[in-house]
Amino acid sequence: MTSTGDQPIGIFDSGVGGLTVLAELRRQLPAEDFIYLGDTARLPYGNKSAGVVTRYAFENTLYLLDQGVKMVVIACNTATAGSLDRLQTHFRRSILGVIEPGAHAASEASRSGRIGVIGTTGTIASGAYEKAILNRRPGAVVHGAACPLLVPLAEEGMMDHPASGLIIRDYLQPLLLKDIDVLLLGCTHYPILRKAIAQQLVDGVRIIDSAGATAQAVREDLVRQDLLRNSMGRAGTCRFLLSDRHDHFRHLAERFLDGPVPDIELVTY
Amino acid sequence: MTSTGDQPIGIFDSGVGGLTVLAELRRQLPAEDFIYLGDTARLPYGNKSAGVVTRYAFENTLYLLDQGVKMVVIACNTATAGSLDRLQTHFRRSILGVIEPGAHAASEASRSGRIGVIGTTGTIASGAYEKAILNRRPGAVVHGAACPLLVPLAEEGMMDHPASGLIIRDYLQPLLLKDIDVLLLGCTHYPILRKAIAQQLVDGVRIIDSAGATAQAVREDLVRQDLLRNSMGRAGTCRFLLSDRHDHFRHLAERFLDGPVPDIELVTY
Repeated sequence: MTSTGDQPIGIFDSGVGGLTVLAELRRQLPAEDFIYLGDTARLPYGNKSAGVVTRYAFENTLYLLDQGVKMVVIACNTATAGSLDRLQTHFRRSILGVIEPGAHAASEASRSGRIGVIGTTGTIASGAYEKAILNRRPGAVVHGAACPLLVPLAEEGMMDHPASGLIIRDYLQPLLLKDIDVLLLGCTHYPILRKAIAQQLVDGVRIIDSAGATAQAVREDLVRQDLLRNSMGRAGTCRFLLSDRHDHFRHLAERFLDGPVPDIELVTY
Repeated sequence: MTSTGDQPIGIFDSGVGGLTVLAELRRQLPAEDFIYLGDTARLPYGNKSAGVVTRYAFENTLYLLDQGVKMVVIACNTATAGSLDRLQTHFRRSILGVIEPGAHAASEASRSGRIGVIGTTGTIASGAYEKAILNRRPGAVVHGAACPLLVPLAEEGMMDHPASGLIIRDYLQPLLLKDIDVLLLGCTHYPILRKAIAQQLVDGVRIIDSAGATAQAVREDLVRQDLLRNSMGRAGTCRFLLSDRHDHFRHLAERFLDGPVPDIELVTY
């Protein structure tokens, strides 16, 4: 079965975090159709082991491939860290993650080479960002910090609550002591809390997230495979699939995508 | 297949919350053997729908029954609210939940009849506590408040962090305005945060949790079925099964059970 440009792009995350990647994909690739799958029945992924997250990532990928997508974007750092290599080994279609693009963007943005990375327990424990950054910039010094409560805070829409500020401050303190000049948001949920994170930083530290760089990597892969969609003037569409009902999904989706979202479909797999 | 007193009691929760019930069961029933199952691969349950939680509760119950337990205790309010009736309908063995015992304890403890209940989104949305309390005390006025972040805070061991206090204060504020005299902890995780919760209460409000009353209900059911274990002087044992690795499980288990815990077994089902 060969792919065609008319097929949609599949994208998955444990919940709402991948919406920050989807928003950038739609901005850079407005002619493409997307199917977004949020595995809300098993969220969050960040405090689960690589083995369990890999099992979920395989199931999500298979489900999207069965929907006829031409490519799968893992819009979740934990799942990328735990499973990207194995998914790329076993599936024919292109599978792209968010870690390489994020590492690239952070390496480019840092002047001093002292880079802080925040992510889930699983992402930080994997060391995937440190490895990817050092591949591109061997002299860099990478400091990681696990921030396990930021996903629940983002999922609950607590971006403006003072408790979020207190928790973020404690998580960032050790990184700021290392005199970093770039803070990489190594979790697709964290841009939801960008303002609260920025308020805890000192001057001269830039925040980088992987959404823009990931969308660029997706575009390059589609061009290479000659799979860009020929829009003929029609704007791309987006379907939203969730493995369970989610109280805040529509609100956050409309906020990030800057417009109304269509029906959200519940799926079991 | 008939049960005997020598079989263990099965108990499950999404994660560490059920340990607060297990601790009370071991205190009241020191001769019994227990198998504790934490479904850490799919935790938390509280923000998931009744349908999905019921699917997980069936799988947990079946797994425990396959281990040869004489009874299953659902040490999770969300799972009790969503699935107890169906589990009791379909399985032969006794299945006990935490809501009836908790409602009983709160009804007894309140003088004014104005009772506050805090729980997960799923538990509060179910209205199960209000129904159970009104069955026992028709004149009572029950005020519920969903506290979706308390499970992640408890799972991360944030009992002493100032952010927990801020979040708890916001959740409790509407209940305190209703002049309650009893606050029922309608989630087995919440006793982990009992001190932080108590600090946000006004004088004269009593905290009630369901652990003690649940252990009493378990004892009564075992007596009724003539299934109490004859210890012959041997202390009961406890096996711990988790569906995924959990960073804080051992620490919290040792804290709640007040002693070392044996090997934690990882299981897939």
